[in-house]
Amino acid sequence: MMQTPLTMTQMIERAERYFPKKQVVSRTSSGIQRFTYKQIGERTRRLADSLTKLGVEKGDRVGTLAWNHHRHLEAYFAIPCIGAVLHTINIRLSPHHISYIINHAEDTVLLVDPDLIPLLEKCAHELKSVKAYIIMSDDKVLPETTLSPIYDYETLLADANPTFQYPEDIEENDPAGMCYTSATTGNPKGVVYSHRGIFLHSMALGLADSAAISEKDIALPVVPMFHANAWGMPFAAVWFGTSLVLPGPYFTPKLIAELIETEKVTITAGVPTIWLGLLKELDEGSYDLSSLRGVLCGGSAAPKGMIKAFEQRHNIPFLHAYGMTETSPLVVISTLKSYQENLDYEERLEIRAKQGILVPGLSIKVVGKDGEVAWDGKEMGELCIKGPWIASEYYKDERTHDAFGDGWLHTGDVVTIDEEGFVKIVDRTKDLIKSGGEWISSVDLENALMAHEAVFEAAVVAVPHEQWQERPVACVVLKDSYKDKVKKEDLHEFLIPQFAKWWLPDEILFLEEIPKTSVGKFLKITLREQVHKEVLKK
Amino acid sequence: MMQTPLTMTQMIERAERYFPKKQVVSRTSSGIQRFTYKQIGERTRRLADSLTKLGVEKGDRVGTLAWNHHRHLEAYFAIPCIGAVLHTINIRLSPHHISYIINHAEDTVLLVDPDLIPLLEKCAHELKSVKAYIIMSDDKVLPETTLSPIYDYETLLADANPTFQYPEDIEENDPAGMCYTSATTGNPKGVVYSHRGIFLHSMALGLADSAAISEKDIALPVVPMFHANAWGMPFAAVWFGTSLVLPGPYFTPKLIAELIETEKVTITAGVPTIWLGLLKELDEGSYDLSSLRGVLCGGSAAPKGMIKAFEQRHNIPFLHAYGMTETSPLVVISTLKSYQENLDYEERLEIRAKQGILVPGLSIKVVGKDGEVAWDGKEMGELCIKGPWIASEYYKDERTHDAFGDGWLHTGDVVTIDEEGFVKIVDRTKDLIKSGGEWISSVDLENALMAHEAVFEAAVVAVPHEQWQERPVACVVLKDSYKDKVKKEDLHEFLIPQFAKWWLPDEILFLEEIPKTSVGKFLKITLREQVHKEVLKK
Repeated sequence: MMQTPLTMTQMIERAERYFPKKQVVSRTSSGIQRFTYKQIGERTRRLADSLTKLGVEKGDRVGTLAWNHHRHLEAYFAIPCIGAVLHTINIRLSPHHISYIINHAEDTVLLVDPDLIPLLEKCAHELKSVKAYIIMSDDKVLPETTLSPIYDYETLLADANPTFQYPEDIEENDPAGMCYTSATTGNPKGVVYSHRGIFLHSMALGLADSAAISEKDIALPVVPMFHANAWGMPFAAVWFGTSLVLPGPYFTPKLIAELIETEKVTITAGVPTIWLGLLKELDEGSYDLSSLRGVLCGGSAAPKGMIKAFEQRHNIPFLHAYGMTETSPLVVISTLKSYQENLDYEERLEIRAKQGILVPGLSIKVVGKDGEVAWDGKEMGELCIKGPWIASEYYKDERTHDAFGDGWLHTGDVVTIDEEGFVKIVDRTKDLIKSGGEWISSVDLENALMAHEAVFEAAVVAVPHEQWQERPVACVVLKDSYKDKVKKEDLHEFLIPQFAKWWLPDEILFLEEIPKTSVGKFLKITLREQVHKEVLKK
Repeated sequence: MMQTPLTMTQMIERAERYFPKKQVVSRTSSGIQRFTYKQIGERTRRLADSLTKLGVEKGDRVGTLAWNHHRHLEAYFAIPCIGAVLHTINIRLSPHHISYIINHAEDTVLLVDPDLIPLLEKCAHELKSVKAYIIMSDDKVLPETTLSPIYDYETLLADANPTFQYPEDIEENDPAGMCYTSATTGNPKGVVYSHRGIFLHSMALGLADSAAISEKDIALPVVPMFHANAWGMPFAAVWFGTSLVLPGPYFTPKLIAELIETEKVTITAGVPTIWLGLLKELDEGSYDLSSLRGVLCGGSAAPKGMIKAFEQRHNIPFLHAYGMTETSPLVVISTLKSYQENLDYEERLEIRAKQGILVPGLSIKVVGKDGEVAWDGKEMGELCIKGPWIASEYYKDERTHDAFGDGWLHTGDVVTIDEEGFVKIVDRTKDLIKSGGEWISSVDLENALMAHEAVFEAAVVAVPHEQWQERPVACVVLKDSYKDKVKKEDLHEFLIPQFAKWWLPDEILFLEEIPKTSVGKFLKITLREQVHKEVLKK
């Protein structure tokens, strides 16, 4: 067979050549804009030319600090197609972590949305590698900013070559993208995606038994493009000629409902928090979302009641899936087997509320304390994953060994697997809380609390939350001398300057002691139960 | 990303683990048999163990001379999964060519259907590398044969290890399969398929916009498993947990219709000759084929009238595609774009009767005499193909350079490509005739005729044929001294011992001269027109 490399250049070129009339609908601060793939293709070539002229070379990292819109999409292809590495920066990280990851990735150029400039200005003095800031504005007017040197995206494109030819020396294992994910403690960890990984993952998204992304779809990724490549949807969509609807900054459930209705969206993707918001909107408003063939839901477990509400109240089919930044992300997807379609609705719902079965191309095993667990839907173990779109390491990070030591990715997620191979997440081995699709480190919160002079010990656990799936609650044992002298408001104040606002615990409980294992570790399972009861009482 | 190789072992293991209850329906000489993927998985492990015990080593070629049935399916996986190479032998080749390809591939073991033993016995004395013949019989009784040494398939499996573990040292570029294809002249040329190629091609078959092979399908490959891996359908079906219906030897249109009806087949694949036969059967008989979601048609162009007849008279949707042995085979497939669905039926039919648009993962170009042709549906050029499931050479064959000289496969097919990227085959640069999906070399027939003492010159051209798509007609200029002395029956008799029966020209026309180009080459386009008129007159 020919040794033609599995690279991304062919994806954007296929959209340009075969689907020049198909559309990308992009919502920016100035409203809805529409582009054909012919235009997107040409603009992507112009961006590639501009970056090359700015000195971006093969292997260089180029960061983006941006919402879901057409310019971000152009960056998704222009950067990898000149052999550079697309580093999508999670804007929800603390300024400290944002500085860390930009420095750690050694980004040479940053593409920034105008409304995110203030965020970046907080970090700019710490940045060591950035040589240019490109502002992705509709205005062609450079804003007042301390960032320097700055360039206007549209001005660069206007001066660039619309027929720029992508270099042909890209190998399939060359890095194409990277994304940092929160750690149990300390700085975020970087995951590098290769051209090959993105190629294969995109194919997996197009399989009839998976998300079945097709030219006939109109796809709306609500999941941010700074979260695991918006689950790979932009890559697959462009490759297959699928129309895209990109919802831009600060959208509301109402806006998402309107976009689905007016653009006749067929498939959308996002975390449960988004869908809970949309559900409320649909229950209250009046929309025709009959174009939707599927709502892809991942990032956290979708509550069964929510799936049922969408399907039975609004006739919108749900598609539950699971993955993580380290896995590109698609790993399992909850499409029923043919013979399961004959079950009654409640039985089907029971299966579909699980995370799903393995997509072709990957391997999983579920490892309990005595080796691989039985496929009985009961025995629990840690989910371990292997395959060509699974990370093999954290970028230049000593924490690689913990997760990837034996050639498998150890996810830290505790799951069961049933007789039919459906995986269900039941717990997490790592001290992480997932709030609205974003990670919060319980360990970092604990360490901060324990640094307070009044605190003897502190443990932070997740409690279930209707809107955010999980929220942190802190359990604090005060030093005897401080008892009754320190209030939870004091500790809250103490935490505020140290964390993003949404990291702060919803509740601080004072306990007499924290339950521990025989070796003195926090017994978080017991603590969680205790906290759930406390919180429910209130 | 992890460097996990793209190999076939995971395909059969996925079927075993995730779809153990799904079925393979296999028709053999003793009737219909049913196996689950659990059974097929175990039997495949037993076969792998048996072959290993017989001394088959990594890289060895193992040939099959067999129809479409469960044992052939087991061989499809057992052979590559021990690192050996599955060589599917086209039983329609002449005994001379069969000997040639077995010797050229250096097959060490042959798996043979009982009814094909007489065919193989004709070649056996010429075979140099074969050390064992395994007879794939239902009986467990070894037939009388001159082949030696022979083994019974079921006896071997009964003695073998059902939990045999496939070796883990297979690399993705290792050879997995091979298939020989007829040449313009001389011996067939070998194409080697890699694990990686088969992996990627199978993914392409599963894409929603391609054949969309799914777990929910019940797939009936009518296309022989000795033709380009039955177009890759068995690989994709096993991987995705799709039920398979394998029609066995000597089937009739009636049998195919009955199988589709009783097994509720959803997708089937074959050449136009098969579908013309089925159409006649459907027009005359009474069947419920409403389970069919698609008839995949390739190998030769499907006549528009036939597509229309299936769709309008029988409500069976057609799916036209194009490929060749060298391309695994899927290259283009005629699925409409979303906005083409709004056209009226005749306009849609016009598009769907073309061979289709490129599947993701490949590149094509259409090269006319002045470089790449315009995408206007008019300008003609040779179709050239590149990609990871396209052969890069003919196996140990000097003819490689002609077809693959510049890194592209030059197909020899003359095509147009329209504004939307749909490819339409319009002619062939090579002197090959495609009869019922099989190649006939016009050059070989010409050389044979010109070896007759009475023949001055001879040219063989294809004429369109309703059932076989094309049939050969010979045009002969007799030497002056033989004129009126030699009859066409004499030449026919002369050809009989030299060719397979279906190669013999349907008609031999005596001409005064053969039209030629300025440099003295046969002007076959002109000759073809002349012959069409002659044949139509009759």
